[in-house]
Amino acid sequence: MSELKSAAEELDAADGLAALRGRFVLDDVVYLDGNSLGALPAHVPGRVQDVVRRQWGELRIRSWEESGWWTAPERIGDRIAPLVGAAAGQIVVGDSTSVNVFKALVAAVRMAAEDGAGGPGRDEILVDATTFPTDGYIAESAARMTGCALRPVAPAEVPSALGERTAAVLLNHVDYRTGRLHDLPGLTAAVHAAGAYAVWDLCHSAGALPVGLDEHGVDLAVGCTYKYLNGGPGSPAYLYVRRDLQPRFDSPLPGWNSHAEPFGMRPGYEPASGAPRGRVGTPDILSLLALEAALDVWDEDAVSVEAVRAKSLALTDFFLRCVAEYVPDGRVESVTPVAHAERGSQVALRCDDAGDVMKRLIERGVVGDFRAPDVLRFGFTPLYVGFADVERAARVLALTLGEAG
Amino acid sequence: MSELKSAAEELDAADGLAALRGRFVLDDVVYLDGNSLGALPAHVPGRVQDVVRRQWGELRIRSWEESGWWTAPERIGDRIAPLVGAAAGQIVVGDSTSVNVFKALVAAVRMAAEDGAGGPGRDEILVDATTFPTDGYIAESAARMTGCALRPVAPAEVPSALGERTAAVLLNHVDYRTGRLHDLPGLTAAVHAAGAYAVWDLCHSAGALPVGLDEHGVDLAVGCTYKYLNGGPGSPAYLYVRRDLQPRFDSPLPGWNSHAEPFGMRPGYEPASGAPRGRVGTPDILSLLALEAALDVWDEDAVSVEAVRAKSLALTDFFLRCVAEYVPDGRVESVTPVAHAERGSQVALRCDDAGDVMKRLIERGVVGDFRAPDVLRFGFTPLYVGFADVERAARVLALTLGEAG
Repeated sequence: MSELKSAAEELDAADGLAALRGRFVLDDVVYLDGNSLGALPAHVPGRVQDVVRRQWGELRIRSWEESGWWTAPERIGDRIAPLVGAAAGQIVVGDSTSVNVFKALVAAVRMAAEDGAGGPGRDEILVDATTFPTDGYIAESAARMTGCALRPVAPAEVPSALGERTAAVLLNHVDYRTGRLHDLPGLTAAVHAAGAYAVWDLCHSAGALPVGLDEHGVDLAVGCTYKYLNGGPGSPAYLYVRRDLQPRFDSPLPGWNSHAEPFGMRPGYEPASGAPRGRVGTPDILSLLALEAALDVWDEDAVSVEAVRAKSLALTDFFLRCVAEYVPDGRVESVTPVAHAERGSQVALRCDDAGDVMKRLIERGVVGDFRAPDVLRFGFTPLYVGFADVERAARVLALTLGEAG
Repeated sequence: MSELKSAAEELDAADGLAALRGRFVLDDVVYLDGNSLGALPAHVPGRVQDVVRRQWGELRIRSWEESGWWTAPERIGDRIAPLVGAAAGQIVVGDSTSVNVFKALVAAVRMAAEDGAGGPGRDEILVDATTFPTDGYIAESAARMTGCALRPVAPAEVPSALGERTAAVLLNHVDYRTGRLHDLPGLTAAVHAAGAYAVWDLCHSAGALPVGLDEHGVDLAVGCTYKYLNGGPGSPAYLYVRRDLQPRFDSPLPGWNSHAEPFGMRPGYEPASGAPRGRVGTPDILSLLALEAALDVWDEDAVSVEAVRAKSLALTDFFLRCVAEYVPDGRVESVTPVAHAERGSQVALRCDDAGDVMKRLIERGVVGDFRAPDVLRFGFTPLYVGFADVERAARVLALTLGEAG
């Protein structure tokens, strides 16, 4: 047995989270695409059947109360809260990440305008220039609709770009392409020092590493639930509004679900207090309750985000070590930072023929994904990826790169 | 047997749609709340299980292509299209009704601004003063964010309220409370004659009566899918943008799913052409595909909306007749128009103790709903409600009202 295979065996044997793999539906594929779509927790299909057959089919309309449908957005928000370091009552689940970015950014600009009333005004939004595109597109719309200018800047340049005109800053906690982890505490502090509001996109960090929203005083945050939270394809996103900002949260999408008295059917809008103020329309129950079931994996086994983070770093370290060992020098280049403090839970390797390479990797049972133009992306979900998977992935990658080269 | 019971038997025997009832999961309850949450089609649970177990659990990320997840929003839009009188390629499914009202109204105002460039400008939105509240709240936000004034007017007064400043008019096809059917062709023509854009909310008409979007030249429309389309709790809403307006549809929520090349991951936004331009973020697949399955009821049996409409009117006529027969004069007052041309697929009865009466009706197996402050609402879904149901509902209602009075 090779040295790396033995090392993988030892690491798996010592892995305190190894048993969790059994809670997911997995086959003999090495699934390194959980940063795109998390695997199916084995108990979720049964729960979804209950929602469809009994809650919808038998109880029908009564389920809005009796099955807790109406309160699902905030109840499930409270389940996500501990995973991102938030106390209860600050997260609401619903809509897509894009829609939540719009809510958060417009609300942040409105708060900044209120703060700056009487002064020269705050009319600039800074956005991560390396962002997943949708955040940039939505930020552009939010800027246009609030009369702000939009300025894309690299996250590292945010501190020097901040000024007295800055209203809000939209940042990604982990870069979707490179897997770089940005300095959420430091950047949030810098944004605050400039009197602006920090909006964080947690899509690629929540469920993979500690976020510490409350601890670091983040103002608003959004994230999806279908990556490291395994909520299912297109499961609803969430919105965090820090408790003390909630009374000032002025939503651009004030749907009836966010009304103080939704069933009062009043012609005049009066916002609910607390997290439900971030709701909009009728929640999509099937997707929401599949997500709720998926979150049981964390609760029932008392999985700590810290343990997940430790394993995540061990997995990506080991992958980089295996790649260095197996793959000829220069054939790929890692664009993921080596420093732990700068690394999320994925490794991105650049090579010119990445699209072709990923196709053949998938044929061989190693599933990552390709991001144009030249990135091989491998996500490591500590809940169900083991070290033997990692070794195998690197070995198959080397084989595939050898052929293609 | 009473005369009305015999009449119900005859009507049921002659009902060409009667067999469809067998396609739904129903018990001995008379379910007259399909205008709030449609009943479960019997084949849907199996389809949802396939989506969860096989598409998500086994194929995982491959399902975005192999299971047609990526194209579901426009594919399912094309399934809804014939039910609302639209040719293919104009409807996209996703997000809530509230979010779609926002997209449609902002886009309409932007088109009007473009039309009016150089002139005095069009900066007023008219909204149905009797609207389901969320439309009014969202219209207020759309007005605020586009610099328009918002004026609530009763639908009948729209023609006289229209003027050279009117940019867009948001109307409900059927009033959620009274069940009144508004004159979509006439009002749309009036809006057009004033040079403005008509946005219709079809929540309470789609699937219950012919809408004729294309025929009547409607500009934009939205609707939910969990009422007469039986898509399931909180199933996604849809957006119709008339084909010739699509190149001018300028979305306030330009998420990555609406990009011309979503996987190009370009920093600059370039809108897709056609219906997908109305998409925003990642679609919620479980809810979407449950809806897609539910729509099979229409296709497989070639159910025509015209036949549904004929039965719907027969059902509400018969209900009004039974109520007139069974319920003492003056105990309730119908707020639903008698004229067929002004009636949707529900009957709303006013009485002071409506909240209490509905509770006891439900205990007795007749499920309608209560709308504050004093309305008993009964929805008639022709796909699964029969005439014996109607007679029983009126009989139990009379009994209940007798006690309470």
